[in-house]
Amino acid sequence: MVFFNKNHMRPNTIIVSLLLIVFLAQNAKAQQNTGFRQEKVFYPQVNENNTVTFKLKAPLAQQVILSGDWEADKGKGEMQKDSNGLWSFTTVPLPSDIYNYRFIVDGVQILDPNNSFQTRDVGTLFSIFIINKGKGDYYSVNDVPHGNVIRTWYHSNSFKSDRRMVVYTPAGYEGSKKKYPVLYLLHGSGGDEEAWINSGSVIRIMDNLIAEGKAEPMIVVMPNGNPSKQAAPGETKDNLNYRPAMSNTFSGYKDGTYEDSFKEIIEFTDSHYNTIPQKTKRAVAGLSMGGFHSLYISANLPDMFSYVGLFSPGLNYNGININTHAYSNLDEKLLSLKKSGVKLYWIGVGKEDALLGAITTYRNTLDSLKFPYTYKESTRGHLWTNWRSYLLEFAPQLFKN
Amino acid sequence: MVFFNKNHMRPNTIIVSLLLIVFLAQNAKAQQNTGFRQEKVFYPQVNENNTVTFKLKAPLAQQVILSGDWEADKGKGEMQKDSNGLWSFTTVPLPSDIYNYRFIVDGVQILDPNNSFQTRDVGTLFSIFIINKGKGDYYSVNDVPHGNVIRTWYHSNSFKSDRRMVVYTPAGYEGSKKKYPVLYLLHGSGGDEEAWINSGSVIRIMDNLIAEGKAEPMIVVMPNGNPSKQAAPGETKDNLNYRPAMSNTFSGYKDGTYEDSFKEIIEFTDSHYNTIPQKTKRAVAGLSMGGFHSLYISANLPDMFSYVGLFSPGLNYNGININTHAYSNLDEKLLSLKKSGVKLYWIGVGKEDALLGAITTYRNTLDSLKFPYTYKESTRGHLWTNWRSYLLEFAPQLFKN
Repeated sequence: MVFFNKNHMRPNTIIVSLLLIVFLAQNAKAQQNTGFRQEKVFYPQVNENNTVTFKLKAPLAQQVILSGDWEADKGKGEMQKDSNGLWSFTTVPLPSDIYNYRFIVDGVQILDPNNSFQTRDVGTLFSIFIINKGKGDYYSVNDVPHGNVIRTWYHSNSFKSDRRMVVYTPAGYEGSKKKYPVLYLLHGSGGDEEAWINSGSVIRIMDNLIAEGKAEPMIVVMPNGNPSKQAAPGETKDNLNYRPAMSNTFSGYKDGTYEDSFKEIIEFTDSHYNTIPQKTKRAVAGLSMGGFHSLYISANLPDMFSYVGLFSPGLNYNGININTHAYSNLDEKLLSLKKSGVKLYWIGVGKEDALLGAITTYRNTLDSLKFPYTYKESTRGHLWTNWRSYLLEFAPQLFKN
Repeated sequence: MVFFNKNHMRPNTIIVSLLLIVFLAQNAKAQQNTGFRQEKVFYPQVNENNTVTFKLKAPLAQQVILSGDWEADKGKGEMQKDSNGLWSFTTVPLPSDIYNYRFIVDGVQILDPNNSFQTRDVGTLFSIFIINKGKGDYYSVNDVPHGNVIRTWYHSNSFKSDRRMVVYTPAGYEGSKKKYPVLYLLHGSGGDEEAWINSGSVIRIMDNLIAEGKAEPMIVVMPNGNPSKQAAPGETKDNLNYRPAMSNTFSGYKDGTYEDSFKEIIEFTDSHYNTIPQKTKRAVAGLSMGGFHSLYISANLPDMFSYVGLFSPGLNYNGININTHAYSNLDEKLLSLKKSGVKLYWIGVGKEDALLGAITTYRNTLDSLKFPYTYKESTRGHLWTNWRSYLLEFAPQLFKN
């Protein structure tokens, strides 16, 4: 008996196949007593006009709210129930991007039970979907050569512990002796070494930009930027007792120790990967707290980076000791960096970002020092949609000569 | 102002801190309009006696069922609501293990909104927790040296496409020229190259067994065993339109093409990693469909593997063409394998596994061929709790001489 032979799919075969699926689902349930998802498939449906239809079977619920991270309608939608208890909502057309969402069912925040794909941002899980035909294509897996992704640990003498990082090596790296430039890509205060992968689509972006010849093949190093944390939630000896939170609730937040320790990350990378260990072949960039880190790391190590990217840099100094080694004498440090040469100093921020004022103040400092930089003011606020977009714009400008 | 200084935590500081947390949560919400988890923390609480308390705030719900993969009470619990709409349930004491669970709120299956940690099994997401002081310690991150985990792609001439695999290299591998033995570890028909990591705790198990000196340092290669799938859900060009399902709904299920192609996985591994490329330093093992694959791969390549592990092997032949190249003449192949030498041929199955009869029939075949093997009959059924446990027992027996 042949199941699912596309060329010979007769009606009775289809019925047998459906019965088989039901049997398998029940069988799976018997074997694994939590059971697998039983509902008929209602993924969020991306319609031809880029509207998106959501559905949820919840006959007893009194209210279901859709909550997502798109701009239209502030990402909110009140779902409507039909007589079968199936709730639905269709958005207005959405720009091409990768989006996250949840349902709020009578006040309980849930993932979409019919969507197997999720992401974690800080400590919260979200269901996800992609709108293609635009930026979303860069956040998708395409039929191009794929780089490797390595979770590794380096020993930190500064912190006297092993610490975790994620390393992307471009397609062709493995099994070759070729040497590559390195982008150090830093997360924000809600993140960890998994953040750029979870929410930043960095692997897809790099694979696609490199395959199109728009970006140079490069290694991307994503370390953990929380001094008191060796690794992402679940990856430390605290295991599932690690409660993900914003970094400013952790000890060591912006105390300068991370910036001071950064050289050991570069040394580890240069000694363990096929890098071109020189200033013109190194970039450092980061979002929010990671932008703050990138600013001070590049300023403190003027001979290390020719490319710097500050994505909505977290230039809020509440509770920060500006006289600590890493943060003191910034103007002098910037002048040293300017003197040693910077090929690209790129700053991006959204018009609605609460940090816009602080970033404007910093730009005034750069202007007064005649420090050359590129400035991009995008729409919206302190959001992953911007940070992905900034990476898409920044990465192709790196290591071109 | 110093926030969260443990040594000087005065009451007014605590109040300020709490206000700060509220502010940050609201700020995060403002920035990221999906909002982050707002509830007070009620992780599942593992109590001193290994009972576990679950809580869910759902004032409008009429019924909340806890559904988990532990044996007691068939993993079910009817939660009770207090006057504040907080539902709770406490299990009986549970054996040390890693567990998954969901809540069923008025018929809607949800993850625990207060737990950031989840796993995917086939297409279903589950919240997870660990009970320590036993096997669960091996499924936890401990303060030991950690291996690397690499997601990589190999080119398959058999399938004329790139295919994804996950590779574990033991602590000390990177930056060393030492050569290591290799365990090829295969997933079941609900799985993919991520399954042993998602549900099998393989990284924790190997890190811990190697650190204790119980297992030889080894490379573990986990390829994707679905002929028609290049990679796990979300990692192929189908992106989020890949609907995870049991492999027997995919084309190529147990048609022999995967077994016939396996040599190219070995060749890729030997040419890209520091392996000891010889039979006595290779093992192949797998669960369910992966046990079926391991049986035929080892039988078809008698000079390749000295160690074979069949974990609840899926010896159900419905719809399988037993006369295809990979599956024909099994007795002769087993005699060749016996002749070329097998150091360990390990079979494990649960007493309640529906495959017990088929596996007993296969043992009779082995007995009639005087083929030596080790047999373990555990409790329970076709479950990850068994497969983790089998790996814990199998891995220390590999490559000892």
